[in-house]
Amino acid sequence: MHNYKIIVAYDGTRYKGWQNQKTTDATIQGKLEKILEKAVGCPISIIGSGRTDAGVHAKAQTANFYLQDSYEEEELLEMFNQYLPEDIAVLSVKEAGARFHSRFSATGKTYRYRIHTGNIPEVFERKYVYSYNRPLYVEDMKKAAEYMIGTKDFAAFCGNRHIKKSTVRNIYEIRFEETENELRIVFKGSGFLQNMVRIMTGTLIEVGEGKKKPEDIPAILASKNRELAGFTAPAQGLMLMEVKYD
Amino acid sequence: MHNYKIIVAYDGTRYKGWQNQKTTDATIQGKLEKILEKAVGCPISIIGSGRTDAGVHAKAQTANFYLQDSYEEEELLEMFNQYLPEDIAVLSVKEAGARFHSRFSATGKTYRYRIHTGNIPEVFERKYVYSYNRPLYVEDMKKAAEYMIGTKDFAAFCGNRHIKKSTVRNIYEIRFEETENELRIVFKGSGFLQNMVRIMTGTLIEVGEGKKKPEDIPAILASKNRELAGFTAPAQGLMLMEVKYD
Repeated sequence: MHNYKIIVAYDGTRYKGWQNQKTTDATIQGKLEKILEKAVGCPISIIGSGRTDAGVHAKAQTANFYLQDSYEEEELLEMFNQYLPEDIAVLSVKEAGARFHSRFSATGKTYRYRIHTGNIPEVFERKYVYSYNRPLYVEDMKKAAEYMIGTKDFAAFCGNRHIKKSTVRNIYEIRFEETENELRIVFKGSGFLQNMVRIMTGTLIEVGEGKKKPEDIPAILASKNRELAGFTAPAQGLMLMEVKYD
Repeated sequence: MHNYKIIVAYDGTRYKGWQNQKTTDATIQGKLEKILEKAVGCPISIIGSGRTDAGVHAKAQTANFYLQDSYEEEELLEMFNQYLPEDIAVLSVKEAGARFHSRFSATGKTYRYRIHTGNIPEVFERKYVYSYNRPLYVEDMKKAAEYMIGTKDFAAFCGNRHIKKSTVRNIYEIRFEETENELRIVFKGSGFLQNMVRIMTGTLIEVGEGKKKPEDIPAILASKNRELAGFTAPAQGLMLMEVKYD
């Protein structure tokens, strides 16, 4: 068996998310698996580092799959890009060790959330930003973000109310990048729960609007109650930037 | 009468170009005029600095129009952006002197052409680049571009075969910007003929492929024959960057 690691970029606008679904074939995983099946003649499962929600983008999602026969990396790369739609591209294909697993081997992930804060609508990047179109009080957002750093139970920031597994995650860093018309928030952590970055972002936006205070964050975390956190920021502002492996 | 100068950004993908056409209302000028007519109650002509072809984008097209009554600049700006589709935005509205004319007062224009030269398809910028996907020999393109600088008759680089007016234009500068996967060519000049930047780009690409030599350019210019110049590069790679006024 040969284990191939791929890095995939996609504009999530047209898709129902990364992961296969019974009711639609408009998923990134589905598009990749269909091409692979045609090439090798039998169905092949592609394992992603994690799901991305419908509408979320990725600059570098990582995935892997096993093939019986050996293929040239370059040959697989060209094949994917020849048949993929123009909003998905495979950036690299590398044969990995047999034990490499894109989800279990991952040691960290970086997400970036883009908020357009200018009052003039953004034309060219419009599908990759949340068109908030108003200023935010960023200093308070930075203070609030400090309370989110570290190993904590993020149950209040989880979109899946029926989750049975641990909701503890380690957030390494939350960085703010400001330009005249845009605020970008970069989240680095061991891993993220369903909708977690979007709920963190929505909560930070409510702090930036004065609806919540930075000092409210510890109580929200302690409550483990999704109702107390902020809204789920729209998918289109979110981009999976990197998946880290040791 | 009040004369208003506006700066407009648009993603040209969905449009049949800047200028109004009898057979379609999918033009940038048409979208702007429709909003203005609703606001002031009678048809108003918007004068653009020049046409852009179907599919060409603009970061800063300039236009002007006359209104009988005085309006707040901020009021007009908000009204345009409230009703415009998300692929067009008015960036600024300023009352100008009565003699300002967006076309006749213009003293120069800057266009940028983006060629994706990497072998991996570009996902996020795909609508704003020409997906050429192969490398080009840029040193020869730079040499060829040198022959295009100055005040010359660009008849061989004009897409309109029935043009009666002068085809002499002054090209100030052609600058090349290279990154690992992209080549950008920036053209600055007094003005440009129909399709001129796209034909110049197509000709430069043919030089970069070795199909034409840099030294062929003077003879192409002298011929005034469109057939001797290169192909018309696709509209989607082209962006009107700036219109200059003294």
